[in-house]
Amino acid sequence: MKMILAISFFILSLLSLSHASVVDFCVADYNGPNGPAGYSCKSPKKVTEDDFVYHGLATSGNTSNIIKAAVTPAFDAQFAGVNGLGISIARLDLAGGGVIPLHTHPGASEILAVIQGTICAGFVASDNTVYIKTLYKGDVMVFPQGLLHFQINSGGSNALAFVSFSSANPGLQILDFALFKSDFPTELITATTFIDAAVVKKLKGVLGGSG
Amino acid sequence: MKMILAISFFILSLLSLSHASVVDFCVADYNGPNGPAGYSCKSPKKVTEDDFVYHGLATSGNTSNIIKAAVTPAFDAQFAGVNGLGISIARLDLAGGGVIPLHTHPGASEILAVIQGTICAGFVASDNTVYIKTLYKGDVMVFPQGLLHFQINSGGSNALAFVSFSSANPGLQILDFALFKSDFPTELITATTFIDAAVVKKLKGVLGGSG
Amino acid sequence: MKMILAISFFILSLLSLSHASVVDFCVADYNGPNGPAGYSCKSPKKVTEDDFVYHGLATSGNTSNIIKAAVTPAFDAQFAGVNGLGISIARLDLAGGGVIPLHTHPGASEILAVIQGTICAGFVASDNTVYIKTLYKGDVMVFPQGLLHFQINSGGSNALAFVSFSSANPGLQILDFALFKSDFPTELITATTFIDAAVVKKLKGVLGGSG
Amino acid sequence: MKMILAISFFILSLLSLSHASVVDFCVADYNGPNGPAGYSCKSPKKVTEDDFVYHGLATSGNTSNIIKAAVTPAFDAQFAGVNGLGISIARLDLAGGGVIPLHTHPGASEILAVIQGTICAGFVASDNTVYIKTLYKGDVMVFPQGLLHFQINSGGSNALAFVSFSSANPGLQILDFALFKSDFPTELITATTFIDAAVVKKLKGVLGGSG
Amino acid sequence: MKMILAISFFILSLLSLSHASVVDFCVADYNGPNGPAGYSCKSPKKVTEDDFVYHGLATSGNTSNIIKAAVTPAFDAQFAGVNGLGISIARLDLAGGGVIPLHTHPGASEILAVIQGTICAGFVASDNTVYIKTLYKGDVMVFPQGLLHFQINSGGSNALAFVSFSSANPGLQILDFALFKSDFPTELITATTFIDAAVVKKLKGVLGGSG
Amino acid sequence: MKMILAISFFILSLLSLSHASVVDFCVADYNGPNGPAGYSCKSPKKVTEDDFVYHGLATSGNTSNIIKAAVTPAFDAQFAGVNGLGISIARLDLAGGGVIPLHTHPGASEILAVIQGTICAGFVASDNTVYIKTLYKGDVMVFPQGLLHFQINSGGSNALAFVSFSSANPGLQILDFALFKSDFPTELITATTFIDAAVVKKLKGVLGGSG
Repeated sequence: MKMILAISFFILSLLSLSHASVVDFCVADYNGPNGPAGYSCKSPKKVTEDDFVYHGLATSGNTSNIIKAAVTPAFDAQFAGVNGLGISIARLDLAGGGVIPLHTHPGASEILAVIQGTICAGFVASDNTVYIKTLYKGDVMVFPQGLLHFQINSGGSNALAFVSFSSANPGLQILDFALFKSDFPTELITATTFIDAAVVKKLKGVLGGSG
Repeated sequence: MKMILAISFFILSLLSLSHASVVDFCVADYNGPNGPAGYSCKSPKKVTEDDFVYHGLATSGNTSNIIKAAVTPAFDAQFAGVNGLGISIARLDLAGGGVIPLHTHPGASEILAVIQGTICAGFVASDNTVYIKTLYKGDVMVFPQGLLHFQINSGGSNALAFVSFSSANPGLQILDFALFKSDFPTELITATTFIDAAVVKKLKGVLGGSG
Repeated sequence: MKMILAISFFILSLLSLSHASVVDFCVADYNGPNGPAGYSCKSPKKVTEDDFVYHGLATSGNTSNIIKAAVTPAFDAQFAGVNGLGISIARLDLAGGGVIPLHTHPGASEILAVIQGTICAGFVASDNTVYIKTLYKGDVMVFPQGLLHFQINSGGSNALAFVSFSSANPGLQILDFALFKSDFPTELITATTFIDAAVVKKLKGVLGGSG
Repeated sequence: MKMILAISFFILSLLSLSHASVVDFCVADYNGPNGPAGYSCKSPKKVTEDDFVYHGLATSGNTSNIIKAAVTPAFDAQFAGVNGLGISIARLDLAGGGVIPLHTHPGASEILAVIQGTICAGFVASDNTVYIKTLYKGDVMVFPQGLLHFQINSGGSNALAFVSFSSANPGLQILDFALFKSDFPTELITATTFIDAAVVKKLKGVLGGSG
Repeated sequence: MKMILAISFFILSLLSLSHASVVDFCVADYNGPNGPAGYSCKSPKKVTEDDFVYHGLATSGNTSNIIKAAVTPAFDAQFAGVNGLGISIARLDLAGGGVIPLHTHPGASEILAVIQGTICAGFVASDNTVYIKTLYKGDVMVFPQGLLHFQINSGGSNALAFVSFSSANPGLQILDFALFKSDFPTELITATTFIDAAVVKKLKGVLGGSG
Repeated sequence: MKMILAISFFILSLLSLSHASVVDFCVADYNGPNGPAGYSCKSPKKVTEDDFVYHGLATSGNTSNIIKAAVTPAFDAQFAGVNGLGISIARLDLAGGGVIPLHTHPGASEILAVIQGTICAGFVASDNTVYIKTLYKGDVMVFPQGLLHFQINSGGSNALAFVSFSSANPGLQILDFALFKSDFPTELITATTFIDAAVVKKLKGVLGGSG
């Protein structure tokens, strides 16, 4: 009996340590300040199993748009449980003819896993070599950090993929939106890409850019 | 014309830089030495698009075994393209009644995405709190680095999940195998787990351990 | 004289820089928010030499318990000075017959140094290989991150060790407590470890678990 | 005398430690294998002061090209001393009207310091916000990792800048070269950028791309 | 029209993600708490292009002092934009005969680029090997993390250099100030450096130390 | 029976994965090339429990020298098992009057644990604040990375301490040896420390420096 009490005391001291400290995980507290390593930690006492689960990827994204595709992220801004853990995930839906336009993730490498359909994916390396593959159900492809890459539904029916990232906040810079859905001055775009001003203006018209 | 030549020269110098250097990626050369950061890099000249794609997860793992489940990894030892990129992936197949026994990944956090079926998953934190959830198609759950966790097919039919890791070599320590499929001396297991020697020996008999 | 003033001005500007900034160290402010990288920093003006010293390891832990052993941590939750510095330490006391049960540190590798007595220590790797050694006074042993390991007093008298960690918050998951001192449902333990429910319930009775 | 010998012995043991080990630095051995963390280390015995100095940035790059600009890198592939140290540098020369086209560094943040002339620089963030500033002699600007950015000589005379990186191998992906100086198939470029095939083909003609 | 609205919706969701999250950068909010990884992040909505530019290095530091030199830092404490990005910069001005005394940066490696004049620079490695070089305009030299190093104007006229660091807060410990401009007790300095008390006291007199 | 075979097959596939890969640890192979992250890994098949244990700290270092002290390291160059694990350890022996002179570890923070005797220890921060404490048996003190620090036996009898580091190769730069046991030219030492040439030459005479 005495022994049991003794060990209970021992266990309690370990419990109190864990509850008071930054141990194992740091579920995001969106109301606290954030820093370079991520969001503040929610008090461990308030953490529940629901903090480690995200339901937002269970339904298809809306692909009724110009790219016939949708990206649904579960990054640290959406999925509090991944804060500080160096990993996150997103769902890609591509209707027939759907395209995830050329983009980069400034802060992470990515692995794509094809769940349904056929996807043609590729990336360009720093030496301008282009690596392109057609991927079928169950295939996985890795895109090294920060490089331009794309995904296209190359089959006839809907395609679905899950993409994982080596960071809880990988970032997402879509080339066309950076250029043509922003207020990037047309003359500077032309000067730094050699794309004619007329072409730039036309694409800004479609995507909603200004300047 | 002269301008074009000039820029070609400029481009070539950038190309040569990339080819000679550790740039963008480091596809594993399994014949070279490895180090704490991963495998040696394959010569960039020999890298092709096939190095960034892995087909080994496209088919179901064999679940005709005692756990009615299979883990098929695409870590850096199998998937050369992820070497050094801080990310990897695996496929979980769970037949009806299938179980991925309690295990840890010593070097990575994990995100599980349910592709098919229903999976009951959970982990235990350092303070002995247990977080358990039943996950349905499209749900994702995160398991913080190094903690004991499990997955059980809690539906009637086959279940499938993809699990991603925040490391190219996350490691995998299955508790039962560490204890009962090893040559861990029975008396030491008993002393360090309080599990009776008879129980230990019985489980070693089933799983193939010795000592 | 003018020169002295000039350099004094120079020195003062350096001082002010240091006092305003995150420089050299970040002593934990337990009243501020914490994040994935650790606790908030105490104002440098309030930091004294006492913040860098911890006396809590100077006396033996209480080993009058079921494991005849005690772990006294000096992690960032106890020792404010190590916050953010990637290192921490703890004291192990093992009375005759004492055992530190199988456990992992999810976030750190460990080095054990035997100060007094004889300790049998070991760990199990991901491939289920077991590495066990009997250590004498002055011996050191390293336990790679996240792997199951144990320490047993294998001599007749009290044993003492200091254990260092490659993180300020290494975490500590004791296998028996995770399973039998928690509310981990017995049927799930049985399903994920193959340990009979009767054995699980018995150990829960001893250690205080429920479910 | 005996004391001196004793300390000499002590010193020698420290010296031998340093010479045999990975200590302080790891000057690149371009003939050895490389890995995810960089090149193999040159034997410390062969390292000289010349390994830590690079003269290649002392002369202007050749700006007689289509962009009227030159980037001269001192990354780990050129400057062996920076291998593994998490820092590198490059020189930018921009003649009148010179432009460093839109580009990213997939693996590093950058600080630009204007040494001579006037430079208009900018970057686009993940949310498509554009940050542009005109920089004068002595101004510095930071470009966060992996984001599209550019530099333009916005003054009449030659401009010179040094740019530093938070990695020894930051990588360099020039947008126009990735698209139009590669063998990226025109139809895929069109599909993933919405830029007309005719425009793509014209730019490929200028820059030397195929496909 | 409907399509345009659809994609606008898609774009807006991406924008909102970025604005709510820790994405791309974390400009220092000097009024928030700081932590081991740096300062809190300023609200992205309040960030402007001015946060990424620093003008403080555009003018010479005041070299009318005993060392005839000045160090002007643009670390995270001065330059909010570099917070968390792993890079920073400083300006060195050395009048004729100017010297940056022996110092270390505890948290970063450094690259020096000579902009004007001639600088003799050197560092000492852990094995007491001394690496010294005379650097001319345009030369760069790397100083591995944490090692004692110095810079001397070895030409007749003013010298100017920019120095970059592999951290946003590299720290700066000037040997002479640590010893002789502090309250380090003279007897302890003598005991730990073998420098005579008389010499220590004399230097304390010049530099303003006490104790 | 069939089930047992099935799971054995499953187990074997996991074993083969571990043996072929960089998993859990990377014991140093001193005959292979090294890189920025440490030594090459010994083949897992050749690794034994002896690789994780080091006996070299079990006996006192020789303190019959000018400093009446000895540092015995168990860094990655001596203790193969710590390679790549971010931790190492050393033993300090201080006879009566013994001193570990002012030194830095360029690549690691340190925790000192007093095992026997009384030790006066201290460090100087970047802002020249000096933190000094007298430590008794069982006290621990942390020294933040890269800062000048010292240890003195402040009791009458022998003192013993174990010091742990947040790196497998912390480096060790002893100030006096860097200055006076090297070939650092006397005039440069004088210019960069303001210590008179006569003092420098005298100390070089004692410690064996030249130049």
